[in-house]
Amino acid sequence: MRVTDLTTPALLVDAAALEANLADMAALLPGPRLRPHVKAHKTTALAARQAAHGHRGFTCATVREVEGMAAAGLGEDLLLANEVLDARRLGAVVATGARVTVAIDSQQTLRAAVDGGVREVLVDVNIGMPRCGVAPERAGALADDARAAGLVVRGVMGYEGHLQLLTDPGERARLTTGCTDLLRAAHADVGGEVVSGGGTGTHRMNTACTEIQAGSYALMDTAYSAAGLPFRQALTVLSTVVSTTAPAGGTPGWAVADAGLKAFGMDHGNPAVPGGNVWFCADEHLVFDAADAPRTGDRVRVVPAHVDPTVALHERMHVVDGDEVLDTWAVDLRGW
Amino acid sequence: MRVTDLTTPALLVDAAALEANLADMAALLPGPRLRPHVKAHKTTALAARQAAHGHRGFTCATVREVEGMAAAGLGEDLLLANEVLDARRLGAVVATGARVTVAIDSQQTLRAAVDGGVREVLVDVNIGMPRCGVAPERAGALADDARAAGLVVRGVMGYEGHLQLLTDPGERARLTTGCTDLLRAAHADVGGEVVSGGGTGTHRMNTACTEIQAGSYALMDTAYSAAGLPFRQALTVLSTVVSTTAPAGGTPGWAVADAGLKAFGMDHGNPAVPGGNVWFCADEHLVFDAADAPRTGDRVRVVPAHVDPTVALHERMHVVDGDEVLDTWAVDLRGW
Repeated sequence: MRVTDLTTPALLVDAAALEANLADMAALLPGPRLRPHVKAHKTTALAARQAAHGHRGFTCATVREVEGMAAAGLGEDLLLANEVLDARRLGAVVATGARVTVAIDSQQTLRAAVDGGVREVLVDVNIGMPRCGVAPERAGALADDARAAGLVVRGVMGYEGHLQLLTDPGERARLTTGCTDLLRAAHADVGGEVVSGGGTGTHRMNTACTEIQAGSYALMDTAYSAAGLPFRQALTVLSTVVSTTAPAGGTPGWAVADAGLKAFGMDHGNPAVPGGNVWFCADEHLVFDAADAPRTGDRVRVVPAHVDPTVALHERMHVVDGDEVLDTWAVDLRGW
Repeated sequence: MRVTDLTTPALLVDAAALEANLADMAALLPGPRLRPHVKAHKTTALAARQAAHGHRGFTCATVREVEGMAAAGLGEDLLLANEVLDARRLGAVVATGARVTVAIDSQQTLRAAVDGGVREVLVDVNIGMPRCGVAPERAGALADDARAAGLVVRGVMGYEGHLQLLTDPGERARLTTGCTDLLRAAHADVGGEVVSGGGTGTHRMNTACTEIQAGSYALMDTAYSAAGLPFRQALTVLSTVVSTTAPAGGTPGWAVADAGLKAFGMDHGNPAVPGGNVWFCADEHLVFDAADAPRTGDRVRVVPAHVDPTVALHERMHVVDGDEVLDTWAVDLRGW
């Protein structure tokens, strides 16, 4: 199949860029040093490629992601790096023989793990971003409570998410060290073999963690590209120019492509048209101008500003080599 | 079933608010005066409720929406108010006995209708928003070309989308008249019985159109509420507070609910927590504070900032009366 045969909008994954990203990261953080985060692609076929590069443990953000990964035979070591108050569906996954570890940061989430039949936990520690996680000085006590309740505490996790997109790598490194110092201190109180954290933006500078939870590195987006990371843009949204308006009376001309708010995660702003200027997005439209005067019928590969919520809007992604479609993967971990 | 039994995040539709919105709009724009836009809810079960209120024609933004509406038995008069360069799937819907009309604004989209087997078109006219649509003064010539190619030209459409959210109703009315004057002029050149346009924000002031393409009025969002429209907020996203952090050392406390960038369209900014302040959203998290100090396990009904892209992220919506779930509808018009 050719790219020109695809209905638009459609997610495209550049096969060579993806493989380069996976290989480069695996060289830097081999095997268990990386616990790829599937929330960034929500695609078990892509996770299988990460497994082929040596990573057997994965990070998930939702119960559905844990279920889907286990069902796809990728359940050797799944971490739900998020809090849940009903862990029964996770317990059902454990009962199938998969290994599931869940984050806890409170008595309620501890109790949910016990009640749901999940036996292994990490203590989630707040290391600076106001989100989930227990205060570092209270992590040890929560671990004690978890062990007293019969749980296995594998260690700690903490996420310096507020630092991932800082454009100055020196500042990013300095602030990351401040965060991971808190995580080290909590780990000293908690014990266990696992210190999990980090992301694509801090994968090199976070040296305190035994495993890095990076996800965006595989496909990338304009926000992470702006942070100067050594990964290639693998993901685009293929769209078709369905309308053009010529310049007239001092008004510049513009083109309209058939990919809009329902094809792009918009929290980081507009997507980018290489060689063009994006004016705005509507539900099913991207309005832009470009120096090469796009024509009705042209195909445009648009670069998302934020990979994770973009992927969540699509049913499938097409793996391509130039204009050839090599494979089509279901985005099969969507929903909750 | 009770709301407390639902997995979160989950779309909730307040049954009374929805029915009030549908009834109020049907009283104002009865029967064919309203052509409800399904892009705002992507749900054939909700469209069936609109049909029960007397509206038999519908507006669609994608080919998938047209296909799904016809398959659901709601294909009496479907308008794809958008340009397409491949109309073969629309022609296949026509072949099943449904009535499909498609917008055209160029020779290419005219040709696509002919080649795809769609026999009826509207000439899409640009009336002020830089998006699709032919210039008003060229609408008549395009209609002539369409008729010469064997198409039935039912009339014109034009959308004053840039005015929908203006908060000053007087300014909105004044500018709407300017837009619809252009549409009237184009219609005089094009002919046909249909003058289609308008939206939830201009449904009262757009008196030039024979039919209004409003969609958001059914479910509503914070952006349209800010425009002072007489419709009730029917849509919320049910979420669960999974983590809380108490105030400490001058830092205020906060709560984290399990609905984030993958549960809300973000192009109009953060969603709203009634009685609370939203700090930020992450992929699966909403961080907020509230005067009533939310506790872990609390359920929170969050109000989306933009209904259309929010709905597109969910597989289903639950129709509720307080804490009782009356019905569950598939959001079955997603994708392309």
